[in-house]
Amino acid sequence: MISAYSERLLVQEVAPRDGLQIEPQWLETADKIALIDRLSRAGFTRIETGSFVSPKAIPALRDGEQVFTGIHRQPGVIYVALVPNLKGAQRALAAAADELNLVMSASQSHNRANMRMSCEQSLAAFADVVALAREGSTTLNASIATSFGCPFEGRVSAERVLQIVDAYQELGVDGITLADTTGMANPRQVQALVTQVLQRLPASALTLHFHNTRGLGLCNVLAAYEAGARRFDASLGGLGGCPFAPGASGNICTEDLVNLCAEMGLETGIDLPLLLQLSRGLPALLGHAMPGQVAKAGRNCDLHPLPAGL
Amino acid sequence: MISAYSERLLVQEVAPRDGLQIEPQWLETADKIALIDRLSRAGFTRIETGSFVSPKAIPALRDGEQVFTGIHRQPGVIYVALVPNLKGAQRALAAAADELNLVMSASQSHNRANMRMSCEQSLAAFADVVALAREGSTTLNASIATSFGCPFEGRVSAERVLQIVDAYQELGVDGITLADTTGMANPRQVQALVTQVLQRLPASALTLHFHNTRGLGLCNVLAAYEAGARRFDASLGGLGGCPFAPGASGNICTEDLVNLCAEMGLETGIDLPLLLQLSRGLPALLGHAMPGQVAKAGRNCDLHPLPAGL
Repeated sequence: MISAYSERLLVQEVAPRDGLQIEPQWLETADKIALIDRLSRAGFTRIETGSFVSPKAIPALRDGEQVFTGIHRQPGVIYVALVPNLKGAQRALAAAADELNLVMSASQSHNRANMRMSCEQSLAAFADVVALAREGSTTLNASIATSFGCPFEGRVSAERVLQIVDAYQELGVDGITLADTTGMANPRQVQALVTQVLQRLPASALTLHFHNTRGLGLCNVLAAYEAGARRFDASLGGLGGCPFAPGASGNICTEDLVNLCAEMGLETGIDLPLLLQLSRGLPALLGHAMPGQVAKAGRNCDLHPLPAGL
Repeated sequence: MISAYSERLLVQEVAPRDGLQIEPQWLETADKIALIDRLSRAGFTRIETGSFVSPKAIPALRDGEQVFTGIHRQPGVIYVALVPNLKGAQRALAAAADELNLVMSASQSHNRANMRMSCEQSLAAFADVVALAREGSTTLNASIATSFGCPFEGRVSAERVLQIVDAYQELGVDGITLADTTGMANPRQVQALVTQVLQRLPASALTLHFHNTRGLGLCNVLAAYEAGARRFDASLGGLGGCPFAPGASGNICTEDLVNLCAEMGLETGIDLPLLLQLSRGLPALLGHAMPGQVAKAGRNCDLHPLPAGL
């Protein structure tokens, strides 16, 4: 049964990175900075702010340096940078990212498609990044993409994911993210895997990253929460897509998650009205509708007037 | 914890009634019949087929008689008619509906807005319908709209809903539906209310009707399932809207629910590939996109080819 309602749930905002990554329309650096600055005042303690990947691979995020140096940092907010390799880590550290997020896929074919190398090559390259980060105070998170399923290979076994969790821990990372990159997880699978991973890590070091591609994102959050997870990625407006499912949702929507938590009595510390205001500005900023629901429907407490004549 | 995966979940398809109810574009009677006939072959045991309300109130469903008399009935499928009053019940029985579904809201203001009468007047009118249905073999279901929240009044108390459950049972109905008419329920609330209602009714007599207005429809299904519920309404493609939330989802999407069940190992008996085929035909039929996700994303097992060059 769903329990422990009084506990807190940590939401990491990922719209500026994962959300914008495959946006076809270029978002000006100043608009990115303004969005991140507003998110910084909404109560998030962690914001995935940008990435330091090849500008050819992800042109939408080619301004990582300018974004990181342009934002107004709020005390208590950790600004995270996605880095694919040592060169990216060096750029991120030069831009004073508070945390680096490494990523490798659980499935070989997805890692080759995404990173152009095998999983073994990815892990070997991560050792250099860890050594570099250890020189300063920057923390390191490592993500496992396709942790629940791969669009090329299908179901990914828990054994495979646990093997990578062990490898990440041997490298000495501070946190691990299980990512359902293309929305293939189901609540039963999530509960089983999270239970196993939490035998290796404390809940404070585990993040779950769900996509809503098949409508199960928030179901998977609740299943993970039930299994003990307390940290979740989400994207303002549900910004972010899936390259394999045109028209389908991508990342779970931050304000929908925060609304769910608020309705259930779970603390997030996030200002939902401000979030809704920001989310409702995204269609004008990006030129298309967002999949998030609460921005359209309003909160439960936003009551409607009675029809005329009653 | 989520348990009892081997149990069966009954899905009642409601697209032909609740789904079409507020469609602005008229769907020809022949198209409605063709849709219902195809749904009849997808494995559903219950289809909410039409309504016998005033054609002025719901013009989209003004052809209830023609639909009920035109469909090709499959053995084992119960064809349900929504009826607002005795006159509607007489029309539904004349059209040989297998089951009548009555509806009243838990909140007075929503019942007045929807039915133009008080809850007490609705209940009094239902007694005549029950007496009429008892003359034949037609079964009776009674729905409680706004069971979890009212768009005019806010949160609805469990006590109020239980009071109506008791009144319905005194009337002698065969089944009761708790409807989250405008998508205001949350999983914690659902679990608590379903647990209480199942102390009064067997699971075989209780249906849950969720809307996905705020993205929580499937979370609420799982919470209700956990609390012992086994019957759920859903609408092909997520067809159906919410008059108070333009652009937001309405009913939970049948194929998204069936896909969730399939991934979790819960039996529904429904042919998912056929359902996806039918759902993918809806945008052409109705002139707009549907909120359902799996029809866009495909099933997990619909794998993608590797990118060129790998």
